[in-house]
Amino acid sequence: MEAISSPTLLLNEEICRANIRRMAEKAEANGLAFKPHMKTHQSAAIGQWIKNAGAQEITVSSIAMARYFAEAGWQQITIAFPVNIREAKAIDQLAGRIDLTLLVNHIDVLKTLDNKLTNTVKAYIEIDSGSGRTGLRSDQKAEINDLIEAVQHTSLIRWAGFYSHPGHSYAARSKQEILEIHESVERQCNKLRDAFESKSASSFEICVGDTPCCSAATTFSGIDAISPGNFVFYDLMQYEIGSCSIADIAVAIACPIVDQYPNRNELIIHGGAVHFSKEKTGNNHFGVVAKTNNDNWQIADPQMHLHALWQEHGVVQCDERTFSRYQIGDIIPILPVHSCLTANLMKQYRTINCQQKIAMMGS
Amino acid sequence: MEAISSPTLLLNEEICRANIRRMAEKAEANGLAFKPHMKTHQSAAIGQWIKNAGAQEITVSSIAMARYFAEAGWQQITIAFPVNIREAKAIDQLAGRIDLTLLVNHIDVLKTLDNKLTNTVKAYIEIDSGSGRTGLRSDQKAEINDLIEAVQHTSLIRWAGFYSHPGHSYAARSKQEILEIHESVERQCNKLRDAFESKSASSFEICVGDTPCCSAATTFSGIDAISPGNFVFYDLMQYEIGSCSIADIAVAIACPIVDQYPNRNELIIHGGAVHFSKEKTGNNHFGVVAKTNNDNWQIADPQMHLHALWQEHGVVQCDERTFSRYQIGDIIPILPVHSCLTANLMKQYRTINCQQKIAMMGS
Repeated sequence: MEAISSPTLLLNEEICRANIRRMAEKAEANGLAFKPHMKTHQSAAIGQWIKNAGAQEITVSSIAMARYFAEAGWQQITIAFPVNIREAKAIDQLAGRIDLTLLVNHIDVLKTLDNKLTNTVKAYIEIDSGSGRTGLRSDQKAEINDLIEAVQHTSLIRWAGFYSHPGHSYAARSKQEILEIHESVERQCNKLRDAFESKSASSFEICVGDTPCCSAATTFSGIDAISPGNFVFYDLMQYEIGSCSIADIAVAIACPIVDQYPNRNELIIHGGAVHFSKEKTGNNHFGVVAKTNNDNWQIADPQMHLHALWQEHGVVQCDERTFSRYQIGDIIPILPVHSCLTANLMKQYRTINCQQKIAMMGS
Repeated sequence: MEAISSPTLLLNEEICRANIRRMAEKAEANGLAFKPHMKTHQSAAIGQWIKNAGAQEITVSSIAMARYFAEAGWQQITIAFPVNIREAKAIDQLAGRIDLTLLVNHIDVLKTLDNKLTNTVKAYIEIDSGSGRTGLRSDQKAEINDLIEAVQHTSLIRWAGFYSHPGHSYAARSKQEILEIHESVERQCNKLRDAFESKSASSFEICVGDTPCCSAATTFSGIDAISPGNFVFYDLMQYEIGSCSIADIAVAIACPIVDQYPNRNELIIHGGAVHFSKEKTGNNHFGVVAKTNNDNWQIADPQMHLHALWQEHGVVQCDERTFSRYQIGDIIPILPVHSCLTANLMKQYRTINCQQKIAMMGS
């Protein structure tokens, strides 16, 4: 901490590697392909830890991220985002270099894409398993059937199966609630399998990817592959959902205290919306102050939290007792609410043990 | 728009230059030094437009930003953030190159800083004029007096006067409410002037900087300098506050439509929390769809807004009538809620007229 003078994203490599290992082992034990989502860390170096844990395929959320990881040597990448026909040329170029899988949810989009391709791609049909964001519902059997047949009539697009992000698991507030959502997803996957598996001559697959379900579940009935992303770091949001313990959180922002107000027990830190993002917990906090214990993070004190953010300023609310423990010039680690958005803003990690700097896409 | 395939931050140079010119003229007409805050645009090129409008001094919120603008040729820079004593070495190095002004709110910090400096800096005392974030209240006369005297006993720090960011103006919801806050700030400035002006042998100055007050006010009693920042672009938040009209907003993110759901009148765009930030309006919207009219932005339809954001996905809620106007592959411009955070994420502008790319700090 002593070397730090401005907001710094700390990465506990040991916790991160343990999170990766645990998920890779769960995938292997359940016979699942492991295709982790890279949008959380956006880092070739952390990608290498994932490769070392056995992953051969990955998932990303944009063509830019797919290119970055292709440069880093990944040969099998899914862009888990509705295909953007304006990027057809970039998709085609990338498909000439790697084994690329896309999400295609509309017959018109499929036809436009097929007309613009010169290389082969695979396509999942996206299933809206309850999040209400994107994809077809599993009970839209006629529409799904039409779409599968349309894919099968293209010249360069091969149908890969189904993809779903059960994002409604983020509304859960206990492991039990997560598991209820996961069981509903399993039932939907089994129905899809029964209805459509016979339509595929080869490589039919159902891939499901959200950190809450993949963390809490112990069975994966009807599911062939998982693509969680946030689990590499976890964060306060995942802790609130019930996906992890505080000790599983692998990142924190170390922030210098620059000012203090004893009359209202507030510490002012350099650490604002451009470091943490403005994602809040259910209690309207932007982060909690942490301390280290046996190399894991713990909440320093339940009474202390990051309760207001400006562009560069953060306000840590204390009580009288906790306020007195800190002074201007101290560095305090703060656990972020949403590690994906925090990492995206910080653009670089510093590992806790060896103080190594780890680069990200765009850093 | 036809050249755009992924989320792109559009800048209307004409509107931006008009916003800068209007504020520079108001400063000149009121005999105020104009020290605009650069944290909103973070761009040397836009800084040049500000220089062309007559500004000779600027305000920033971090040492990194101060260095960036010093590189771009600015010689007089205020870091409007409580001085971070861990950055004393970087501050000293910068103070060797330019005329640097800091905010110092604590005697201990002042003494520590003075011990570490080899070059002269100036220091404002920060006044909390009602925002409750940082600084001394104007009625803390004894504390302010002690701090002024402590500054005057340092060897390398010169007292410059007072600085205040009346951030409580962001809670206003009409020009009238902004003006009531501004009048209270003016009264506080006059009291500070009466009480402390005589303590300064030279260069005593009161600098106040927030976009709502600087936009709405027509008198600046007791105030010597202004340092608003957001006014270069404005945004939906400023429109809600009452600082600007929609036609004054100079930036929008052009986003491709990638998916659509007629049963719920939702368009899915590529444009998420990593583009817009998660700042919301009072109505819990993350942006509104715009259209151009006579080269200014207008709200496309009051019924259409960005109502949900994931990392890369955005959901535009329409009604039946507006939904039918758009299709997959279209590009729609969306006005951001908080242009400072949006620009910080996007890291590059594209001007609307000549399609010129404008770089930012870190891009």
